[in-house]
Amino acid sequence: MRRVYLDNNSTTPIDLRVADAVEPYLRQVFGNPSNMHSYGRECSEGVAGARESVAAFLNCAVEEVFFTGGGSEADNWAVKGVAFARQAKGKHVICSSIEHSAVLSSCEYLGTLGWKVTRVDVDKQGLVDPADVRKAITPQTTIVSVMLANNEIGTVEPVAEIAAICREAGVTCHTDAVAAAGKIDVDVKKLGVDLLSISGHKLQAPKGVGALYVKKGTEIHPLIHGGHQEAGIRGGTENTVGIVGLAKACEILKAEWPRNAAREAKLRDKLEQGIRERISEVIFNGHPEKRVPNV
Amino acid sequence: MRRVYLDNNSTTPIDLRVADAVEPYLRQVFGNPSNMHSYGRECSEGVAGARESVAAFLNCAVEEVFFTGGGSEADNWAVKGVAFARQAKGKHVICSSIEHSAVLSSCEYLGTLGWKVTRVDVDKQGLVDPADVRKAITPQTTIVSVMLANNEIGTVEPVAEIAAICREAGVTCHTDAVAAAGKIDVDVKKLGVDLLSISGHKLQAPKGVGALYVKKGTEIHPLIHGGHQEAGIRGGTENTVGIVGLAKACEILKAEWPRNAAREAKLRDKLEQGIRERISEVIFNGHPEKRVPNV
Repeated sequence: MRRVYLDNNSTTPIDLRVADAVEPYLRQVFGNPSNMHSYGRECSEGVAGARESVAAFLNCAVEEVFFTGGGSEADNWAVKGVAFARQAKGKHVICSSIEHSAVLSSCEYLGTLGWKVTRVDVDKQGLVDPADVRKAITPQTTIVSVMLANNEIGTVEPVAEIAAICREAGVTCHTDAVAAAGKIDVDVKKLGVDLLSISGHKLQAPKGVGALYVKKGTEIHPLIHGGHQEAGIRGGTENTVGIVGLAKACEILKAEWPRNAAREAKLRDKLEQGIRERISEVIFNGHPEKRVPNV
Repeated sequence: MRRVYLDNNSTTPIDLRVADAVEPYLRQVFGNPSNMHSYGRECSEGVAGARESVAAFLNCAVEEVFFTGGGSEADNWAVKGVAFARQAKGKHVICSSIEHSAVLSSCEYLGTLGWKVTRVDVDKQGLVDPADVRKAITPQTTIVSVMLANNEIGTVEPVAEIAAICREAGVTCHTDAVAAAGKIDVDVKKLGVDLLSISGHKLQAPKGVGALYVKKGTEIHPLIHGGHQEAGIRGGTENTVGIVGLAKACEILKAEWPRNAAREAKLRDKLEQGIRERISEVIFNGHPEKRVPNV
């Protein structure tokens, strides 16, 4: 029997080009990027190159890319890091009701520590109304977190509009782009967000690596305190295998995502049409247009 | 010129047996351990087996092993997770003055949030006096963190005695065993600690993976909130390459560390003697006996 894997929104197989790119870091290049000797330099050069690739993928400066241990760490860092850093302003955070559990439970946790948490509801197609976000903002609000695309129903949220509302109100805006990256254009400048999370294993890179885009000037506390790595705001020796893999996946997707997306959308439409023709009573979750092509 | 790598306390090359063990997880076994389908099961079995190997290495139950994104995350989680979970008891934490920056800056951060932090000094050989820890404990103390071996001078701290003092006082005891694991016996039962951190890349496993031993019943908040992974207290899809690599390294070291340690101690003594014979005024840092064999 031929097995067909249809759960790419849960995790993806590693692209063989990614596996080949990380192989040297598994077997020969083992230095600590923090060290000045030649072993360390080999590795820090690999990490620097990787940061350039991720920055190009997200359209930001290299100094705005921070590597993490995955999408969940990036989400936790964004939400709690800003909530703690800006608590003098107030203790109110906002997220949508369909966020990934990393964001939802970070907010819930803040709730147990005395923060007020507002969950903005979505409509039947999974869309957040930016006007609801505007209404929820108070002078005490420090951060709004709304995902770019939902991982289960594929709806693409109006993050650029939400970010504009936040900017006007002096509120930090985070988006979890874990399910969107590689499927639609993810450009932090066009989105206008302050923080954006991606995850390696949703992009055909290894598990256990991710990145957080942190716009220059954003007030945020570290989640993992430690040494001088990642400009002193994310401690821990760099996961070179993961970082180089994530970067390679970003390079590949930057070139290939539009073609992939067109192919996937065609396949999806064919499947959807087939189901509609054969089953009379069927309801499709998500939004008919505002959605990623692969769900 | 033959390059000789002498900075194994900063990071280690990956053991080729470890690289071979993780290779399938880089190329074929890519499922999400959280999924019930066959792709996910292959992976969750790998993670379950890995947890057994780490538990055997540390002499604890499999349910007490929690995988992290590295030693720094494990240290941050232990210190801040307990400080937050036990803050109703009080806001006082204790560490030694020579802890790794992951512990030192976690404590410093707690200081900025209103915790009182006591740093217990060490003597000239880098030793913490357990009596000083006893003196520093107050009714408000929730956690004491003293490393098992120092990463720069190699001194091995009297962690078992410190843990006994903590137990008696109702204080949680954490030890950073990142620089000790694989060099001396690391047995959580003999040490009597509540929490213990290890890091993959100091054990000839990949960077970006570590583990925290959390004794059953220990009060601790998550550092990375999210899904149901790691018994619901550490969110994020499991870093299968890193986890399987860390486990393989633990299996190898469990069998080989006593022989490695004896060989390294001999080499160290030879080097030390050579230096003493050739250089008249020389001071060796660290403790002459209570030290790891590799520094």
